[in-house]
Amino acid sequence: MKIVAAQKILKANDQLAEENRRRFSAAGVFGVNIVGSPGCGKTTLLEALIGRFGDALAPAVIEGDIAGSIDAERIDALGVPVVQINTDGACHLDAQMVNAAAGSLELGQLGLLLIENVGNLVCPAGFDLGEHRRIVLLSVPEGDDKIAKYPAIFRGSHALAITKIDLLPHFDFSVDRVVADMRRLAPAARVFQLSAKTGGGVAEIGDWLQAEAAAR
Amino acid sequence: MKIVAAQKILKANDQLAEENRRRFSAAGVFGVNIVGSPGCGKTTLLEALIGRFGDALAPAVIEGDIAGSIDAERIDALGVPVVQINTDGACHLDAQMVNAAAGSLELGQLGLLLIENVGNLVCPAGFDLGEHRRIVLLSVPEGDDKIAKYPAIFRGSHALAITKIDLLPHFDFSVDRVVADMRRLAPAARVFQLSAKTGGGVAEIGDWLQAEAAAR
Repeated sequence: MKIVAAQKILKANDQLAEENRRRFSAAGVFGVNIVGSPGCGKTTLLEALIGRFGDALAPAVIEGDIAGSIDAERIDALGVPVVQINTDGACHLDAQMVNAAAGSLELGQLGLLLIENVGNLVCPAGFDLGEHRRIVLLSVPEGDDKIAKYPAIFRGSHALAITKIDLLPHFDFSVDRVVADMRRLAPAARVFQLSAKTGGGVAEIGDWLQAEAAAR
Repeated sequence: MKIVAAQKILKANDQLAEENRRRFSAAGVFGVNIVGSPGCGKTTLLEALIGRFGDALAPAVIEGDIAGSIDAERIDALGVPVVQINTDGACHLDAQMVNAAAGSLELGQLGLLLIENVGNLVCPAGFDLGEHRRIVLLSVPEGDDKIAKYPAIFRGSHALAITKIDLLPHFDFSVDRVVADMRRLAPAARVFQLSAKTGGGVAEIGDWLQAEAAAR
């Protein structure tokens, strides 16, 4: 009985996600769902992408947080349209929330919709938002065993960004292990190495996003 | 309808958690639920506590993970009884899982039961496991805004351990802000600063756990 209810919710979410995706595609908007643990660098990646590719990509941002608007304020400071979703305790965004948030954006004027999910390596895995690509972040301080421990969210992602790569000297973290684990779960996924400190990797992930958007 | 079902599940969980707590208390076992983001240092704290207080505390460990037994193997290597729970996708432990896992431990021979929850700053907040104390970990690389963003899990915790404190020079992280945020949400909670690199803070949190256990 509980399982049936959960399946119904997931089915309804999938249908609405497809509707979101059609709506984004029709408007020429490329949707990206950005997932990862709390503090893995999701907002920092958004800031870097906007700083470097903002003019070319015509981006807007949907920020998902349990509470508050700390991240939305960071994006707002960059002069980019941003909508804050407060999930009020819920542990992930869903297609309904994104549908509602997108309604307050001028999709026709956008090229890229960056959706920052709630910081969580588990629950967002099960909820399609209607994005075209999902990027999962893993920061060096989290450790190189996280793909083995939280496989679902990595399996369903189109790219992995290893963040805070400048901290490698301070941690026993094997990039090779992470890349090998990701290859097993998502053979087609791209892997990027990012450093907010040096700016390394931002050009590569931005180029990839542009190419993926153009190929649609 | 959905809300009613959720309330029923939570109520059943709370009842079973009370049963767990009574069972632990009757056996003279002090239960501790350890929560925090993926990679925040939960297993490392367990290793440090066991290394320093293992003989005095007679500990056992229940490891909660979505998949695999990486953490349980780390604890097993220390010669401490350990039970691995695989949640098979679920984003938190619940009282039922802990009840089942505790059934395979010799509670009468234990003084301390350390329960490492799934790495997640959101969902474990709603599920009492039957513990006597809950410790939430926040690592410096996650950022000092996490209490504001994920308030529920901090509000219900008896202690906050700020981990990887040796990384402070590499991050724009205000311990004062974190302590102030925690004071607002959980005025009675203790705050510890831990470094796995230097061993700093382990004595303090171990002493606190011993005093809390003795006061029961």
